[in-house]
Amino acid sequence: MQLVTFREGTATRAGLLDAGRVRPLPFASVDDALRGSALQELHGLAEPRAGAPDLAAVELAPLVVRPGKVVCVGQNYAGHIAEMGRTPPTHPTLFAKFASTLTGAHDDIELHEPSTQWDWEAELAIVIGRSILRASATEARAAIAGFTVLNDVTARDWQKRTAQWLQGKNFDGTTPLGPALVTADEVGDGSGLRISCSIDDEVVQDSSTSDLVFGPVDVVAYVSQAMSLQPGDVIATGTPAGVGTGRTPPRFLQHGEVLTTRIDGLGECRNRCLRPVAAHPADGE
Amino acid sequence: MQLVTFREGTATRAGLLDAGRVRPLPFASVDDALRGSALQELHGLAEPRAGAPDLAAVELAPLVVRPGKVVCVGQNYAGHIAEMGRTPPTHPTLFAKFASTLTGAHDDIELHEPSTQWDWEAELAIVIGRSILRASATEARAAIAGFTVLNDVTARDWQKRTAQWLQGKNFDGTTPLGPALVTADEVGDGSGLRISCSIDDEVVQDSSTSDLVFGPVDVVAYVSQAMSLQPGDVIATGTPAGVGTGRTPPRFLQHGEVLTTRIDGLGECRNRCLRPVAAHPADGE
Repeated sequence: MQLVTFREGTATRAGLLDAGRVRPLPFASVDDALRGSALQELHGLAEPRAGAPDLAAVELAPLVVRPGKVVCVGQNYAGHIAEMGRTPPTHPTLFAKFASTLTGAHDDIELHEPSTQWDWEAELAIVIGRSILRASATEARAAIAGFTVLNDVTARDWQKRTAQWLQGKNFDGTTPLGPALVTADEVGDGSGLRISCSIDDEVVQDSSTSDLVFGPVDVVAYVSQAMSLQPGDVIATGTPAGVGTGRTPPRFLQHGEVLTTRIDGLGECRNRCLRPVAAHPADGE
Repeated sequence: MQLVTFREGTATRAGLLDAGRVRPLPFASVDDALRGSALQELHGLAEPRAGAPDLAAVELAPLVVRPGKVVCVGQNYAGHIAEMGRTPPTHPTLFAKFASTLTGAHDDIELHEPSTQWDWEAELAIVIGRSILRASATEARAAIAGFTVLNDVTARDWQKRTAQWLQGKNFDGTTPLGPALVTADEVGDGSGLRISCSIDDEVVQDSSTSDLVFGPVDVVAYVSQAMSLQPGDVIATGTPAGVGTGRTPPRFLQHGEVLTTRIDGLGECRNRCLRPVAAHPADGE
């Protein structure tokens, strides 16, 4: 099953993907649907396929809109750990995103003016389907509703201002999440999926989720030792090698570039990056 | 004006404190009230004082229930910076709490079993009253609805597992917030307030908010450069010297101890600390 959240005027709505159509669900978002229904009952709640809009005709919202938690894992691919000059961790490194940093799979991303070092981080994201606390591996696996694509677009200069990364990771609307929740019965435990990131036509990250130091089930079980997880919560599992700050010389996102974040089996986010007008005077000025 | 959030069965309700009585407001919480009304109109929306319950008769919930953000400042008192062996910061260090870690001003705090190093951090907390992004100092000052008391109770061992502090700061129900929102017209800009923390009858922290490296207005303005702030959001401004991990030998919270967090003019949180039964076998076992 694949679920999306799309915009309806100023509100949002959950929908079930069915052969290219979006069958509306009686929930405001995928996270609302996960809080309000068992996954296996959603099919029966969707409006008929006849008359449902084409996926191409809807505007995707962030896949989850009001998550209680977005927990991110840092330093979780061996290659990325090496390029950041760090040593492999004994425990998952966790930091947070607030919901206001999420944006839709096809939305423009503002390269907010306070930063001049906008970097990319393609990530596999887990969406939680049931409440857990101090879960075993078996319980953690059962709590995973499914997976989606996230790009932890980072203001690298702000991330590095202090030892805590939060302020570089939470600019408004800089974290695309989507396009769809692909349930675990379609994509398994999230391992063995090719993950890539491209800027315009150039591939800058290309790896496999099999290279995760801590895999999805491990991460969910670990996070749940410290804090309860609820339906609609998101866990971003970390990014592979190839980020801009790891290059010589460093490379950062520029006005007009298109950032494509892809995971095989889960689809892609495709976001145009725009610098505010004040930060990029037109040619000749 | 002073506002509280109290429990009504399984729900919560906002109330306006009036000479020891809690006059109910037509909002589910103080954060709902801040999102739904201008501060100065709340007085007119409160139920009559006659028939309103005494403050002592209500059970306080976390002062805010569904904040979009709880942003915490670390290393923000010179004395605490010294005891943690760190150097004074050039920028505020920011990390996050999720709403699930908040608890009421008089609730018991579970010293969750995964940690054996439960530490205290008395803090002045700011509650945001209006939406801001990239605020000037003047705008930041106007966006502060008021202040309250918070204790950033920390699983020190989990905080130190990795370079990012999140996992030690977000155990469920370990961050008392309250008892009341005291509006800025009563308490000014939050400076010059004596702040203390006691365990049973022993004072372990005793300082003044005048010793903050970055004061409340500075912090609100700074955070808003990176992310928008909305009514009901909370910013915890950091803790003064005297935490348990800074002592020789270190001292941590024990089963049955009562943690009192007090700021003059704002009142106090008073929370009994309880270790789960499995972690503290009864005497003789």
